[in-house]
Amino acid sequence: MRTNWVGSTRWAIAEGYIPSWSHGPEPQMTSHETVCLLNTTDRDAHVEITIFFSDRDPVGPYEVTVPSRRTRHVRFNDLEDPEPIPRDTDYASVIESDVPIVAQHTRLDSRQAENALISTIAFADR
Amino acid sequence: MRTNWVGSTRWAIAEGYIPSWSHGPEPQMTSHETVCLLNTTDRDAHVEITIFFSDRDPVGPYEVTVPSRRTRHVRFNDLEDPEPIPRDTDYASVIESDVPIVAQHTRLDSRQAENALISTIAFADR
Amino acid sequence: MRTNWVGSTRWAIAEGYIPSWSHGPEPQMTSHETVCLLNTTDRDAHVEITIFFSDRDPVGPYEVTVPSRRTRHVRFNDLEDPEPIPRDTDYASVIESDVPIVAQHTRLDSRQAENALISTIAFADR
Amino acid sequence: MRTNWVGSTRWAIAEGYIPSWSHGPEPQMTSHETVCLLNTTDRDAHVEITIFFSDRDPVGPYEVTVPSRRTRHVRFNDLEDPEPIPRDTDYASVIESDVPIVAQHTRLDSRQAENALISTIAFADR
Repeated sequence: MRTNWVGSTRWAIAEGYIPSWSHGPEPQMTSHETVCLLNTTDRDAHVEITIFFSDRDPVGPYEVTVPSRRTRHVRFNDLEDPEPIPRDTDYASVIESDVPIVAQHTRLDSRQAENALISTIAFADR
Repeated sequence: MRTNWVGSTRWAIAEGYIPSWSHGPEPQMTSHETVCLLNTTDRDAHVEITIFFSDRDPVGPYEVTVPSRRTRHVRFNDLEDPEPIPRDTDYASVIESDVPIVAQHTRLDSRQAENALISTIAFADR
Repeated sequence: MRTNWVGSTRWAIAEGYIPSWSHGPEPQMTSHETVCLLNTTDRDAHVEITIFFSDRDPVGPYEVTVPSRRTRHVRFNDLEDPEPIPRDTDYASVIESDVPIVAQHTRLDSRQAENALISTIAFADR
Repeated sequence: MRTNWVGSTRWAIAEGYIPSWSHGPEPQMTSHETVCLLNTTDRDAHVEITIFFSDRDPVGPYEVTVPSRRTRHVRFNDLEDPEPIPRDTDYASVIESDVPIVAQHTRLDSRQAENALISTIAFADR
């Protein structure tokens, strides 16, 4: 790369929803909410994810480290500390980092070997 | 969160279309046009949605409140005041708020437990 | 609306592809490349679309008018002047307007009553 | 076109994944990761793509030329120099150009005559 970083230190994803396992034949219907993070800088990115709900206070931060010059695809389904994200529940997320990163929201469909159903760049607060 | 707000006070979604119920076996083919709103601020967001059409004057505002530090997933199908949004009709929308919010456009497919067909961040007017 | 316009006077869509009718059972496999335009201003928008190819000079402008305070969903399949857009061919587009508009790129799948396969906000040149 | 360029000289795509051929019946399940590039300028664009991984150093640059006033849809599957992109592996990409271009990320599904599964504008670093 000609330069050593790209991105923003704060991102938001207004759409989030993890179906419960009781919907449809499992695991065919399992989908994975993912936020793909890219850290092009020379320093590790200490990322904090805050989850917002429709009917209660936000939960977080969920702490994730993206090493220098690495990408990390974080599944919301796997976040457990401070608490798992409830299923069948609307949520939204804010992603903050101490160095600039790029964030992209993707929902995977496990039926087709990781094909994505949707993907959109997150909103970068500049 | 390290800071207390993210977003813009004005957003636009140029694409909108709610199929009529007569298309395909119902409810399998029912899709839901949704705008996901996120308010990270300390104040309630008073949101006004204006709907634009191809052949008549805009309709609105549709008023929605997103409480402080909450997300709200608004289905265009459910908007009724001042009037329901017609089916089988191209429309577009502008979303304005008195505090900064984040808006994301998603179309849900009810056949697969709320899987999304499309999702894109709305256009933020800065 | 509290204000009377939103958007940009220049947009770009780098992805474009109209399948030929010979692929798959027709019309079930027919898809429609669409650019959804929104004009929130008090003046009509005179829009010029230029189409770029991989192996020949750009073609255009294709002229489209979006009346004041209206939306218009333009199908690339239907553009005919100065010439139809070839099928099975990679293309890209630039959309310019004399007043600010919002542009969103959507591919429709006619099998499911206008369900969209993809949708993404176009790139706004500011 | 009224003006002669649009875009940015640096773009990022945080999401990338090429399924291996062993998943599902081939070629029906083959998907193609694509980045669509548009160069509206009067000069050829010399583009460098750098690929980032989760567990090793970035690889690149992959060099691509987009001629003046042309579009080029680049398949990550086809990149071979300095090395092919591994399958079943999370990656991300940064796209840099010596003239402004527009970049859009699309995943194609070959089962339906080049229908796209996802598409999103890349992140433009301004």
